[in-house]
Amino acid sequence: MKVLIIGGDGYCGWATALHLSSKGYEVAILDSYVRRLWDLQLGVSTLTPIAQLEQRVDRWKGLSGKDIPVFVCDITQYEALISSLRRFPPDAIVHFGEQRSAPYSMISRDHAVMTQVNNVVGTLNILYALKEEFPDCHLVKLGTMGEYGTPNIDIEEGYITIEHNGRKDTLPYPKQPGSMYHLSKVHDSHNIHFACRVWGLRATDLNQGVVYGVLTDETGMDEVLINRLDYDGVFGTALNRFCIQAAVGHPLTVYGKGGQTRGFLDIRDTVRCVELAIAHPAEPGQFRVLNQFTEQFSVEQLALLVQKAAAAMGLKVEVNYLENPRVELEEHYFNAKNTKLLDLGLQPHYLSDSLLDSLLNFALKYKDRVDVKQILPRVKWKG
Amino acid sequence: MKVLIIGGDGYCGWATALHLSSKGYEVAILDSYVRRLWDLQLGVSTLTPIAQLEQRVDRWKGLSGKDIPVFVCDITQYEALISSLRRFPPDAIVHFGEQRSAPYSMISRDHAVMTQVNNVVGTLNILYALKEEFPDCHLVKLGTMGEYGTPNIDIEEGYITIEHNGRKDTLPYPKQPGSMYHLSKVHDSHNIHFACRVWGLRATDLNQGVVYGVLTDETGMDEVLINRLDYDGVFGTALNRFCIQAAVGHPLTVYGKGGQTRGFLDIRDTVRCVELAIAHPAEPGQFRVLNQFTEQFSVEQLALLVQKAAAAMGLKVEVNYLENPRVELEEHYFNAKNTKLLDLGLQPHYLSDSLLDSLLNFALKYKDRVDVKQILPRVKWKG
Repeated sequence: MKVLIIGGDGYCGWATALHLSSKGYEVAILDSYVRRLWDLQLGVSTLTPIAQLEQRVDRWKGLSGKDIPVFVCDITQYEALISSLRRFPPDAIVHFGEQRSAPYSMISRDHAVMTQVNNVVGTLNILYALKEEFPDCHLVKLGTMGEYGTPNIDIEEGYITIEHNGRKDTLPYPKQPGSMYHLSKVHDSHNIHFACRVWGLRATDLNQGVVYGVLTDETGMDEVLINRLDYDGVFGTALNRFCIQAAVGHPLTVYGKGGQTRGFLDIRDTVRCVELAIAHPAEPGQFRVLNQFTEQFSVEQLALLVQKAAAAMGLKVEVNYLENPRVELEEHYFNAKNTKLLDLGLQPHYLSDSLLDSLLNFALKYKDRVDVKQILPRVKWKG
Repeated sequence: MKVLIIGGDGYCGWATALHLSSKGYEVAILDSYVRRLWDLQLGVSTLTPIAQLEQRVDRWKGLSGKDIPVFVCDITQYEALISSLRRFPPDAIVHFGEQRSAPYSMISRDHAVMTQVNNVVGTLNILYALKEEFPDCHLVKLGTMGEYGTPNIDIEEGYITIEHNGRKDTLPYPKQPGSMYHLSKVHDSHNIHFACRVWGLRATDLNQGVVYGVLTDETGMDEVLINRLDYDGVFGTALNRFCIQAAVGHPLTVYGKGGQTRGFLDIRDTVRCVELAIAHPAEPGQFRVLNQFTEQFSVEQLALLVQKAAAAMGLKVEVNYLENPRVELEEHYFNAKNTKLLDLGLQPHYLSDSLLDSLLNFALKYKDRVDVKQILPRVKWKG
């Protein structure tokens, strides 16, 4: 079974490509390297010294015997996309190929427009390519739990059954995204839903929570296979960022009161969730939505867990409550469903002391690469 | 009070500009003329011989004594937009400046991408311009009833209160748009909602039904002020198109079974609704949604009404049920609320025999301009 990983040079994409390759899928990677360009433009870099993609796949071939062809392509260019697909006709496409940082999308008008155009046009191009030439291909699209915002009712998986004035219907779950990036994912979801409804395409939208961790069975096999790990104020996400802050003795940066609650998951579960989605594809015409996280935490809870794990290793770290650069509720109800992937067979890796130990030790190993000037948030949602 | 009409050279925009000017508002028009370019590119043209915008506003000045400055500008170009706004700092912006045809958006991938990028980027640019320099300006944005699709429950105005598992919240009404164009309006709605929530902007989204009619008090004053009236398969909308078909003896083109039910309104109510929205602005931070239509009809009902009115004038016309070029439910529940504009003071012009007579007579007057080759739908949603 041929699986094309779009954005396969990125954090989730690279881990997923190797995992699926090791599981016997015929994998190819399509990437434009623009994620590496953004690091250069922002003057930031991953904690880990990541190799170039060609080196990575060469080493993987040496270790596993498996080929991963690489297509260097920007999916906003339709002709380049369709010609790549013709050379590697996929049974499934895993689409990680979007600008994925909320702060990046909020830097300026240019960044907001670029994020929305890049993400929306890339996904539209994939949908048209599937409609025209690969109508049975299963699109597995990375969405985000952030599409839902923080409603005062339980968050269901993509749809909600509403009774209203004596009638009933099951409708797309209302969306209240919190950044120009999250908005782009909502736009994608509506576009993909339309393509399934009207053209009969099959798609799974994985509304993923915040991913943490760095090693998977495959990326841990060799330093050339090492995955990226972002800690900067633009691309770094909560738990990973906290562990790196602890390793360099920087106070943990909680935004506002820290009561913001979100869904989280280990990157080892990300790769497994994608595998489960591919192995159990959506039906033709179905727009399936799966909430992809394993546990809920508030940001403050995470900071305190990291502080405690660090203390056990002899590292003393403070927790700093910064003025929140975002506009978001800091105390709110949050209860999101996540049973569909469990029903497909996911066995979660829960956040544990041992995971925090290994993440902290990993961060300590590379701490000399940290540029502390990049840690604090510089992008404000307002003003 | 200064009101900028973006897209003021178009069907709704031109009528609105003159109406507000006659009511004492200080009006300017911003337009890129791209709507006229699309006519040229498609080889179609309005039934009515519309004058160039500069001639139109000169004649209006002659008749009314009122100036309407014109800014020739593409709002997807931010610098051009912001410099126009600095020269005419608006208290309210009425935003009609989008690609507004569902069939046009479905012609090809290029048309879909252009429609979404054009509409989303134009609206984002307006939002950023307001945030940066005109935070108190009231944005009155044209949405569409088509954002809602045809759910099996009553359609509320923008939001719905949901009780779920013992908790309750009022959330954005779920959207199931039926074309790449309608999707672009859903994307806009989410973006504008965000800008109100996070930046404190004030906006009114007018989810408009299908507009019919051609004469308003102002556009009827002089032939140079005449409004456009589209009858072609791409830009022509149901009732206007039927009247023109009847005038030239072409069978009325009902798509599918004709049970598709939508909200409709007279263009004289469009201009009045916009005036009411401006006179009663949204509060800072409020994203207000008003459903802007006065009556619901099925497409078949409209065709039969036109057939009957034509017969009374001695015109014999058939109704043809064509294979539906769209993918949509042809029999469905549809009950949409529209009380908010009535509460603000709207006194509807209901569809009547006399209106149909005058529309039919108007169409007869210009029937020699009809190109019958342009009447049938050429754009298919699928295949």
